[in-house]
Amino acid sequence: MSYIAPVKDMLFAIEHLARIEQIARLPGLADAGLGTARAVLQECARFSQGVLSALNAEGDKHPARWQDGQVSTSPGFKSAWRQYAAGGWQGLQHPAEFGGQGLPKTIGAACIEMSNGANLSFALCPLLTDAAIEALLIAGSDDLKTCYLEKLVSGQWTGTMNLTEPQAGSDLALVRTRAEPQADGSYKLFGTKIFITYGEHDMAENIVHLVLARVPGAPEGVKGLSLFVCPKFLVRQDGSLGARNDVHCVSIEHKLGIKASPTAVLQFGAGPGVAGDSTGPGAVSHLVGQENRGLEYMFIMMNAARYAVGMQGIAISERAYQKAVQYARERVQSRPVDGSGNASIAIIGHPDVQRMLMTMRAGIEGCRALATVAAAAFDTAQHHPDAQIRQHNRACYEFMVPLVKGYCTETSLELTCLALQVHGGMGFIEETGAAQYYRDARILTIYEGTTAIQANDLVGRKTARDGGRTARDIAAQIESTEAELLASGTPAARSMARRLTAARQALLDVVDFVVAGSQTQPRAVFAGSYSYLMLAGHVLTGWQLARSLLVAQELLRSGQEPAFMRAKISTAQFHAEHILVKAAGLRDSVVEGADSVTGLAPEDF
Amino acid sequence: MSYIAPVKDMLFAIEHLARIEQIARLPGLADAGLGTARAVLQECARFSQGVLSALNAEGDKHPARWQDGQVSTSPGFKSAWRQYAAGGWQGLQHPAEFGGQGLPKTIGAACIEMSNGANLSFALCPLLTDAAIEALLIAGSDDLKTCYLEKLVSGQWTGTMNLTEPQAGSDLALVRTRAEPQADGSYKLFGTKIFITYGEHDMAENIVHLVLARVPGAPEGVKGLSLFVCPKFLVRQDGSLGARNDVHCVSIEHKLGIKASPTAVLQFGAGPGVAGDSTGPGAVSHLVGQENRGLEYMFIMMNAARYAVGMQGIAISERAYQKAVQYARERVQSRPVDGSGNASIAIIGHPDVQRMLMTMRAGIEGCRALATVAAAAFDTAQHHPDAQIRQHNRACYEFMVPLVKGYCTETSLELTCLALQVHGGMGFIEETGAAQYYRDARILTIYEGTTAIQANDLVGRKTARDGGRTARDIAAQIESTEAELLASGTPAARSMARRLTAARQALLDVVDFVVAGSQTQPRAVFAGSYSYLMLAGHVLTGWQLARSLLVAQELLRSGQEPAFMRAKISTAQFHAEHILVKAAGLRDSVVEGADSVTGLAPEDF
Repeated sequence: MSYIAPVKDMLFAIEHLARIEQIARLPGLADAGLGTARAVLQECARFSQGVLSALNAEGDKHPARWQDGQVSTSPGFKSAWRQYAAGGWQGLQHPAEFGGQGLPKTIGAACIEMSNGANLSFALCPLLTDAAIEALLIAGSDDLKTCYLEKLVSGQWTGTMNLTEPQAGSDLALVRTRAEPQADGSYKLFGTKIFITYGEHDMAENIVHLVLARVPGAPEGVKGLSLFVCPKFLVRQDGSLGARNDVHCVSIEHKLGIKASPTAVLQFGAGPGVAGDSTGPGAVSHLVGQENRGLEYMFIMMNAARYAVGMQGIAISERAYQKAVQYARERVQSRPVDGSGNASIAIIGHPDVQRMLMTMRAGIEGCRALATVAAAAFDTAQHHPDAQIRQHNRACYEFMVPLVKGYCTETSLELTCLALQVHGGMGFIEETGAAQYYRDARILTIYEGTTAIQANDLVGRKTARDGGRTARDIAAQIESTEAELLASGTPAARSMARRLTAARQALLDVVDFVVAGSQTQPRAVFAGSYSYLMLAGHVLTGWQLARSLLVAQELLRSGQEPAFMRAKISTAQFHAEHILVKAAGLRDSVVEGADSVTGLAPEDF
Repeated sequence: MSYIAPVKDMLFAIEHLARIEQIARLPGLADAGLGTARAVLQECARFSQGVLSALNAEGDKHPARWQDGQVSTSPGFKSAWRQYAAGGWQGLQHPAEFGGQGLPKTIGAACIEMSNGANLSFALCPLLTDAAIEALLIAGSDDLKTCYLEKLVSGQWTGTMNLTEPQAGSDLALVRTRAEPQADGSYKLFGTKIFITYGEHDMAENIVHLVLARVPGAPEGVKGLSLFVCPKFLVRQDGSLGARNDVHCVSIEHKLGIKASPTAVLQFGAGPGVAGDSTGPGAVSHLVGQENRGLEYMFIMMNAARYAVGMQGIAISERAYQKAVQYARERVQSRPVDGSGNASIAIIGHPDVQRMLMTMRAGIEGCRALATVAAAAFDTAQHHPDAQIRQHNRACYEFMVPLVKGYCTETSLELTCLALQVHGGMGFIEETGAAQYYRDARILTIYEGTTAIQANDLVGRKTARDGGRTARDIAAQIESTEAELLASGTPAARSMARRLTAARQALLDVVDFVVAGSQTQPRAVFAGSYSYLMLAGHVLTGWQLARSLLVAQELLRSGQEPAFMRAKISTAQFHAEHILVKAAGLRDSVVEGADSVTGLAPEDF
């Protein structure tokens, strides 16, 4: 079925929660107001619905294929990429200096959701290209920027991130790929990288690999990683393409989902078609930034990629939700449970189907609101003239990144599972399409850092490091929202306030536990890291839906879009009564349940 | 990887929770003591591990194939079926009168778990054959029993259940298949049935279809359904096979999982190879029991099938758990979080991996314990000389069936998902195998009645109908266990008692809500049916692990299997602190959150 971009809900979040008009007052973002947002989103919706969506099921049926080192992408992908590039979509958030449009993340994030909602496999290529651009912007020399950025921003070339090796997944300390310095200042790379998304394909004329490797004598562990740029085809001084570089795709993976997205094993410095090690001339590459600072650059660009993967979770959930709603409207089965009729009705009228659809709505709208607000914090952190405000927003954004990545993708597993369930037996049949969303979503809690890695990040760098200050700042903001809810006084607002208060207090208990124990009992704290992440996700998405509820009540009074506003209020209330209510249990798990997580010795499993 | 049947844990549940020695004192079950259980389980483990397990991944890679109305099963399945039949496994729980072994369900259930743990796709064939046998035992005439039972029990023939039609899934009132009475007392069937597991295959010489259809003039709805037996090949008076019957497989489905199990579309009375309607001679069949009582018979056999699908959930979770543990032991990645070493360690040492593995253990052991105790209730209800005790056990068993089916399969979705997560990126690669368990499990919450159907059954027939008496009886038993825990006084027992008490009280609140509202506000009650089912599942599995904890403490004192007993205690404690703690939130959802489930009009989704 076709995908309809949820432009109205996106604009609601952009206008009322992220407050785009405040973003548009920041230096350099004067054109980025609500009008721009609306125009860009409508155009992106048109493109995503018209071009990308139709290729989604096709790509699943006809995955990317490898032969003799070449990868052919799924039918229609080459043409779609040309149109994507021609439309300027790759450059949306990148600087005008390199041909981009310099739009804020608050607008760009919605576009990322749309392209992923239309076609997750396709949208991974721009996602990784964004990351490569980011790395070069952060740390590339002027020469490297001149050489690569314009062509990446225009979509003429695409980019990749090369971190993982067979023995080094979450643990980058184990990376072995070698970088040998050459007399001309370049390096030659030797090693094997795996799980490289769009590491080889036929959609663009060149592929620009960003690669973590070690120079001779580098320190052990992550402090000895350097970042290199290594193109598939070498680039001549005049910008034209030169010789084929010694980086070759020796296979692609046979995966559970995102089958149209080629996941490559890349050999650096092993010659063409050779699966062994170190027998080729070496892959010519250039250092990005300084030696041994690779992890630092990688982290900055990984934050952008992690945020984008979180958007993928929202996107696939939205698409699965739309499909489930459509099926639930069409499928006629069983009489009403209250005996109000003798004929079978569309299943959307049955309470348990409504429970599943409402769970999806609350999850999706809560996550979308959280991600949009996080994007606004990023934009403010980038552009605000006041350093203190920049710093505050930076901290808030960084606190939210592991939630956007970890929580929104964990949620997408649950929601795509529910969407399949709504279809009953038909959901299990591949031709229906619900199963593809379920399969595609399954990678999201794994790549760009598993949920465990996000949870560790939340515990360590985002909570313990500042003694819980950012977490408590956010809790204080939530408390103000609770006061507004109580002041509003409607039954929905009061119910939300009650649940939100309890959930916030549960969160604060956990923050105290994390801060107090991160040094003295780290195993106990990390035993609760996942539950802390889920709890924080519930609370922060509930908070954003609480804000939405207040806005919707206000707009309802002025008669705007009554059906939309009433649905927003219902969805917020559902979140309070069915998602926020999980907070106390999670609090108990973290604060009182650590010992039973780590009580069993490895040999006793 | 190979599957190891969890015989030790099964015997623990059979001996100490189901108390097999009491079962063996019932009339007719004298041979069914612990010694028999041990011998049967060991033999079944040998067969499942040796024959069935190795075919599991092969079957996924080489699914059943349809050509010209014939279905070829996956490599090795024919031979495995011959061995299964020769071993007498199909007859395990069936009467000696028809060649079975007449063993109690308390033993048979463990065998069902093992064959499904080894190979879910394969084990579906015996599961459906059991159901067909059950239907004939319940309602078949002596002629039908003579004709079919011995050959089904021996595994010479296999059986199917034909309920679903394109327009009639959960809603059997919509079944349209016609049964036309013939002069000789037989009937001819005309119609289309879909989703028929092992509806066509090449493993046995005949297939015996049990089919729901309508006789002329039958009442509308479910009260007009009759049950028929319709063989693939007609059976002559002497028991030999006669002409091919007019029931044909026009296609099999392309599914997300259980790919080796052929899911057939069957045409009755449409001639060979014809996809139209009513153009063949009609499928010769015989009425089972009386006209218009088909649903009643179907329900009895469906209870057996639902229980068995619950065992499938436990089985696939166990297999996925074993694979995750193996990977977690082998995969070396990252240093200990507590800084206790500088080298990377096996990930089984990381707290969040332990959290995932413990979640799996607690879910699996809790569900296995619940299902084993339910089986003992079934056996007691069948065999106890005292009618009141029979009746009490019947009610307990029937209360637990929707939990075994609904809760254990919902849990299997979560646990196979976690098992994949433990593998990180490798989990997403099909060759690893974790993805197959994730895909296979996904049907379990759908077939033989979706989770919504189970939840409605729990609310309506199992709770509201007896005014909550059975639910409160069970709660009273749980309360005694709490008293024993408090009397024991160990920290683990006290922690468990505290969580169990709170969870039981939450459950009782929900039972009160269900009983009070089922007539006056059915939509509100059914809005909470899923959460009630999950809450009851948490409480009843937690209860069984609480009993396990008490037993394990006792056995530990006498020095028996200390590592196993300590692990049992840890697992129970984990359940208390990480699963039972969800009870209060679910209670609030049901009792205080109904309006927000059903608040949105169908057109506003």
